[in-house]
Amino acid sequence: MMKTNSGNFFEDYSIGQVIRHAVPRTLTGAERALYHALYPARGALYSSDEFARSCGLRQSPLDDLIVFHTVFGKTVPDISLNAVANLGYAQGRWLKPVWPGDTLTSESEVIGLKENSNGKSGVVWVRTTGRNQHGEAVLEYVRWVMVRKNRDTPTPEPVVPVLAPVVAPADLVVPRGLTFASHNDTLSGEPYRMGDYTVGEVIDHVDGVTIEEAEHMLATRLWQNTAKVHFDATFRPDGKRLIYGGHVISLARALSFNGLANAQMIVALNGGAHANPCFAGDTVRAWSEVLDKAETDAPGVGAIRLRLVATKGTAGALKDDSGKYLAEVLLDLDYWALLPN
Amino acid sequence: MMKTNSGNFFEDYSIGQVIRHAVPRTLTGAERALYHALYPARGALYSSDEFARSCGLRQSPLDDLIVFHTVFGKTVPDISLNAVANLGYAQGRWLKPVWPGDTLTSESEVIGLKENSNGKSGVVWVRTTGRNQHGEAVLEYVRWVMVRKNRDTPTPEPVVPVLAPVVAPADLVVPRGLTFASHNDTLSGEPYRMGDYTVGEVIDHVDGVTIEEAEHMLATRLWQNTAKVHFDATFRPDGKRLIYGGHVISLARALSFNGLANAQMIVALNGGAHANPCFAGDTVRAWSEVLDKAETDAPGVGAIRLRLVATKGTAGALKDDSGKYLAEVLLDLDYWALLPN
Amino acid sequence: MMKTNSGNFFEDYSIGQVIRHAVPRTLTGAERALYHALYPARGALYSSDEFARSCGLRQSPLDDLIVFHTVFGKTVPDISLNAVANLGYAQGRWLKPVWPGDTLTSESEVIGLKENSNGKSGVVWVRTTGRNQHGEAVLEYVRWVMVRKNRDTPTPEPVVPVLAPVVAPADLVVPRGLTFASHNDTLSGEPYRMGDYTVGEVIDHVDGVTIEEAEHMLATRLWQNTAKVHFDATFRPDGKRLIYGGHVISLARALSFNGLANAQMIVALNGGAHANPCFAGDTVRAWSEVLDKAETDAPGVGAIRLRLVATKGTAGALKDDSGKYLAEVLLDLDYWALLPN
Repeated sequence: MMKTNSGNFFEDYSIGQVIRHAVPRTLTGAERALYHALYPARGALYSSDEFARSCGLRQSPLDDLIVFHTVFGKTVPDISLNAVANLGYAQGRWLKPVWPGDTLTSESEVIGLKENSNGKSGVVWVRTTGRNQHGEAVLEYVRWVMVRKNRDTPTPEPVVPVLAPVVAPADLVVPRGLTFASHNDTLSGEPYRMGDYTVGEVIDHVDGVTIEEAEHMLATRLWQNTAKVHFDATFRPDGKRLIYGGHVISLARALSFNGLANAQMIVALNGGAHANPCFAGDTVRAWSEVLDKAETDAPGVGAIRLRLVATKGTAGALKDDSGKYLAEVLLDLDYWALLPN
Repeated sequence: MMKTNSGNFFEDYSIGQVIRHAVPRTLTGAERALYHALYPARGALYSSDEFARSCGLRQSPLDDLIVFHTVFGKTVPDISLNAVANLGYAQGRWLKPVWPGDTLTSESEVIGLKENSNGKSGVVWVRTTGRNQHGEAVLEYVRWVMVRKNRDTPTPEPVVPVLAPVVAPADLVVPRGLTFASHNDTLSGEPYRMGDYTVGEVIDHVDGVTIEEAEHMLATRLWQNTAKVHFDATFRPDGKRLIYGGHVISLARALSFNGLANAQMIVALNGGAHANPCFAGDTVRAWSEVLDKAETDAPGVGAIRLRLVATKGTAGALKDDSGKYLAEVLLDLDYWALLPN
Repeated sequence: MMKTNSGNFFEDYSIGQVIRHAVPRTLTGAERALYHALYPARGALYSSDEFARSCGLRQSPLDDLIVFHTVFGKTVPDISLNAVANLGYAQGRWLKPVWPGDTLTSESEVIGLKENSNGKSGVVWVRTTGRNQHGEAVLEYVRWVMVRKNRDTPTPEPVVPVLAPVVAPADLVVPRGLTFASHNDTLSGEPYRMGDYTVGEVIDHVDGVTIEEAEHMLATRLWQNTAKVHFDATFRPDGKRLIYGGHVISLARALSFNGLANAQMIVALNGGAHANPCFAGDTVRAWSEVLDKAETDAPGVGAIRLRLVATKGTAGALKDDSGKYLAEVLLDLDYWALLPN
């Protein structure tokens, strides 16, 4: 009865510790097809090999969020099995495209630890790196979670990493060879380019999707995320299955096509909050705010910094007077995407 | 707030106008696997590369209805976002097999316009063509929809295209190389060949499938069909999500295996009506009527014209005394398929 | 109305009869991806081409249970359409890996017949063999079912095959080239090897999954299993759809990763009982008991015989005092798997 993984507790982590996560995964065009079935994804670069080739890539890479979910899913048994809360993301960067046939592994380094004053839990910061079969880093990001203590151990010296609030434009990695010099706006679906977006502009993505249990479980399993709370209706007292936050990210990002069709690739994750839990039956909508714009060295390729908000309600509202997220807000994500100049 | 697509209204269309639809799509073996998960599809030619090779093809092509749904899905944002009703199909022909790895685009030409006497809507006829990455047409069909007017514009001169009620046998395109000369009836599942079917014969396909919300949404998203009414439970006053008519087509066609296992490939769509809406929880059954038979030039390959009816009730009944579809009828489709002589 | 398959009845079978089942199926990496979406499968060898190569295989083969379900699904229209009960399995052996791109066919020989004393039904034993496109056997197993009689025919001489209660270790077939000499336990997810398991040990796999209708239907259709009772909510008087027993097998096997992560490949099915029906809404858990251990000739490769039990309740309990399965038990499976020494 002792062979099953009971996960790590706060006292099991130490600064500098490196955890190599289990179960490598080969991704193929099938994950792309499933992604299209699970989310209303329509980005041309991830939908069409021909479109990707017209942008200088050898074929359509795996969607940036497929890579994120796959790398993230592997960390769950080691990082978040005993987590009380998923507190934040920072300094996420996509470093290389992942191609059909590539095999991903995932590794995390503990970079911060701070026990809570109640002595019953603490915050753990990890820097997670996803690698392909050649050992090349394809994605890295920092995540911090609140984790329960299991034993009465001494409080460690607090180490709180200094995290940039946003990835600097100079640190964005544009996939080698990418060009939007001959970007076809008819095929991509919208004519709007960098110059058409202004900082502060808010875009209501209009469409809504009502989520079913089967859908979020299919998705979450596909990323080999094993957190019980997503699958076992007997786990929570209210009999509800909590939807994996990444499912809401992918859903909102796909909905944002309508108004941001040319924001082709996510290259950085500046931050994010899962503001409220999401459950089956919720109808998810999304809106975006343009936060910043930047140049890149690649031909015709600009970078746009976006706030992506998923809600169960209407567009535009985010927090109440006290700075607390409104109950209808599910997600507040801050990312950089590549968009034609 | 103005960047999202609000779709075309009746007054936005003009005769001869060509609309190139967005988001090219590369199809792979994964779409075939998903098709088998979504529908009880068992046609040997689309299930097995080996069987397809024994019929003279280089491998199993993508199912004819995968091609139809993919080409159709692209037209939705431009043609049917403001449609009140999907009125009919005509002159549909599959022109070339689509192979795993092919990338499809879709284009529509406006060939008819007729404003309704109330001045609030009108009928738009389009001829849609799907093309592969070589620019070759793989599918064409005419569809007409009733679309709302948004502005008070002058009534255009009515243009109503003359449409053939049925694709003539001489116009059917048999895939190059196809032969049923050594068609293996044991592997295909039934011994019935062209001579075993008689015009007027009705086949009850016996099996029934109860539809779930997650299933029709997975399917409809896979074809990148964006119509809100399929996904957003808050869209209709009754809180129901309308099931994409093409989902019912694929379900009925798959059920028709039981009695028509050798009707391997659809080559023409003569007409079709979505007689009543379909919702999750409905148990769909199907029956077919043999409407006609014809020869082709390919070895052992005959053509059979079939009426395929999907119902929520029993087989055989279709319309009431006044010629109106019975409430239990979901679909009335008229198509040509290839079947061994 | 007579062209649809009404299935075979008890009187239609004869000893020595060979039934070649319809609809060959080409399997690809897409079936693997779907398997990962449908079940919480995390076995490294079936998840990663790189891991499979480190075990001496050319790439990751199709999951052993994908092969089982595909071969089994083909037999349904001929063997179990009129079955009253699925009584047992024996002598199942996986004989060769199935690779993406392989095409499977399925064939059954009738090896036993015994009419029930009521004269209304009888037991049919078949040995089913799955073959790839080269005609090589990839899987064989014996199954017996109780089938209804349809006509008043003479009672045949009873023939009851002598079946081994367990596949002898010497008869296990290890895939050619397989080695666990450099098995990476960090990547596979657990450190436990043959020496860490003792006969009689019971492992509670801890996790639970609540099943949705859409999930089991997607899975069952993927294997082209056509039994009405899985899909048609109007078929049973209680309006419930019975979940395909193989869905429960795959779910339990995937859950058993937690404690048996290194039991990489199933090589034999000694027996199995679907103890009670499973329905959507059930939360399935699993536990395993180590029944035996054996050596193989392959480097570092041992064999472990496991009882895998799926339940709707808690671990450990199986039968009541009279030897009857407890109502909460869904599955009692006996199999051999390969595990590093």
